[in-house]
Amino acid sequence: MLSLNDFQSLLAGYARRHPFPDDPPMLYEPCTYMLSLRSKRLRPVLTLMACELFIDEVERALPAAWAVELFHNFTLIHDDIMDAAPLRRGQPTVHTRWNVNTGILSGDVMLIFAYKHLLKVHNDRIAVQLVNIFNRVAIQVCEGQQRDLDFEQRDEVSLSEYLYMIEQKTAVLLGGALEMGACCAGASAVDGMHLYYFGLQAGTAFQIQDDWLDAYGDPERVGKQVGGDILQNKKTFLTLKTLELADEADRAALREWLRTPADTPGKVEAVRALFDRYDISAHVAEAKAKLQRSAYEHLDAVKVPLDRQTLLRQTVEQLLERDH
Amino acid sequence: MLSLNDFQSLLAGYARRHPFPDDPPMLYEPCTYMLSLRSKRLRPVLTLMACELFIDEVERALPAAWAVELFHNFTLIHDDIMDAAPLRRGQPTVHTRWNVNTGILSGDVMLIFAYKHLLKVHNDRIAVQLVNIFNRVAIQVCEGQQRDLDFEQRDEVSLSEYLYMIEQKTAVLLGGALEMGACCAGASAVDGMHLYYFGLQAGTAFQIQDDWLDAYGDPERVGKQVGGDILQNKKTFLTLKTLELADEADRAALREWLRTPADTPGKVEAVRALFDRYDISAHVAEAKAKLQRSAYEHLDAVKVPLDRQTLLRQTVEQLLERDH
Repeated sequence: MLSLNDFQSLLAGYARRHPFPDDPPMLYEPCTYMLSLRSKRLRPVLTLMACELFIDEVERALPAAWAVELFHNFTLIHDDIMDAAPLRRGQPTVHTRWNVNTGILSGDVMLIFAYKHLLKVHNDRIAVQLVNIFNRVAIQVCEGQQRDLDFEQRDEVSLSEYLYMIEQKTAVLLGGALEMGACCAGASAVDGMHLYYFGLQAGTAFQIQDDWLDAYGDPERVGKQVGGDILQNKKTFLTLKTLELADEADRAALREWLRTPADTPGKVEAVRALFDRYDISAHVAEAKAKLQRSAYEHLDAVKVPLDRQTLLRQTVEQLLERDH
Repeated sequence: MLSLNDFQSLLAGYARRHPFPDDPPMLYEPCTYMLSLRSKRLRPVLTLMACELFIDEVERALPAAWAVELFHNFTLIHDDIMDAAPLRRGQPTVHTRWNVNTGILSGDVMLIFAYKHLLKVHNDRIAVQLVNIFNRVAIQVCEGQQRDLDFEQRDEVSLSEYLYMIEQKTAVLLGGALEMGACCAGASAVDGMHLYYFGLQAGTAFQIQDDWLDAYGDPERVGKQVGGDILQNKKTFLTLKTLELADEADRAALREWLRTPADTPGKVEAVRALFDRYDISAHVAEAKAKLQRSAYEHLDAVKVPLDRQTLLRQTVEQLLERDH
């Protein structure tokens, strides 16, 4: 069995053997730049791990894994434009370092290269299955991003709408990454589906945890300013669940706080006090646990020996145990 | 044999049977809008015509034809953002009617839907061939668009660089549309290649003719302001060929004119006088004729009876005979 490091080395080697073309530089330099930014490459690693559940030759899943990574980076380039984000992984975003047009076009070509890598699998049937999974996932990611943009413009968003949005925007790709790995190994469609739902539900649990860490995590260990979502009036599991549970006065108070500017004194503390009044941390833990249980039921249903699952289980458990 | 109208009806029927989803509306309404704009749908028609060279069941090529049309519209949405174009086919562009973010994301999802349609071909081997052709073409179109953007920033562009840019940006898709039609019919790779080069060279000839019509065409029949390219200081076959042929004084004069604002009195006439001094219309005719000859050599090499080629020949000839 390979280690996380082994998988990351395999990916780095594949990337080195398949660089972007040199010309035209203004098109491909931003692609190379984006992929050079520090990243754990979780998604393509999941593809390789899913493949290794079934077969030893994980190299077979490398092109699909790299396609997943390219797709993810394509979405980051375009999302950063839409969010007007100046930084990504501590470095200037593509549209900041170059310009918006470059960001659009380099993102486009990166998406097309993702499809190009998918077809490197030397089996037509598997290639078609991969492109089908990829299309299904990619369309949902676009829909999730659109819903996220829509929510910013709306006053009222329900918790279930929010959960569907984060599912589409982020969790679906984790599920798809796993399903594609299984597909590369020639696994059955049923096993592929169980892995998809495992990733989908673990990914949703991860996102809810991420919302909680933003408000309650140790800023030093989380690596960003605490309460950033609150300051920016973002709709999160915490705010939407509190709005669902709160009495009229508290709901009005929370709504009021979420209309104030980021530099309003005492904002983070006041909003957290409202969260606490409705025991929001317990609700987060409960929602997360429910998703995790369901996720592991799907993983348990995959027909492979337990010892082949160790690394995948460990990796996902570590992701979901960041309680600081 | 079907007529041009028949092909357009087939495409309209396919589009009706495969609408975009309704939700989220902000993602899909712009896609539906874009495809509702008046268009002769030349590219997907070429796909159907190429299929009909080999087999009677042109319906087999409908999903690929529609993928070509979706890809073309995806490039239009994103190019219009990059060019800050307010109008497309006489109607507001997507980013004008909605906004830039919507243009980016709706374009993205339209590209992914193109791949989705490609896979509707119920033969894995052909599906993989189609996606391969599509990828090769799509990457070149992005490269061509990048070169076009680069040229706007550069003082010196050679005629051969320009020809390569228009080949990638526009002609490659015409060639690819034909090659994909042949592929759907199960034609040989050699026949597919000949059709690709037929489309590539006819498409380049068409673009050169378009440059000439912009300066010399009858504005009423061309349907746009005469000399628009000159007024906007665009690099075209006419300007670059003149710069190549002219003596030093005329080259300097042309360069000077192409730095003046659009409203400089006498601009179009002065630039055309320089074109005329170097007999540019004859050079256009010669370059066009050479490309056409080569294009038809490729079409002649395709192993199908002459009577099956009639409509394709007529259609392309009509495109290349607009001398008004």
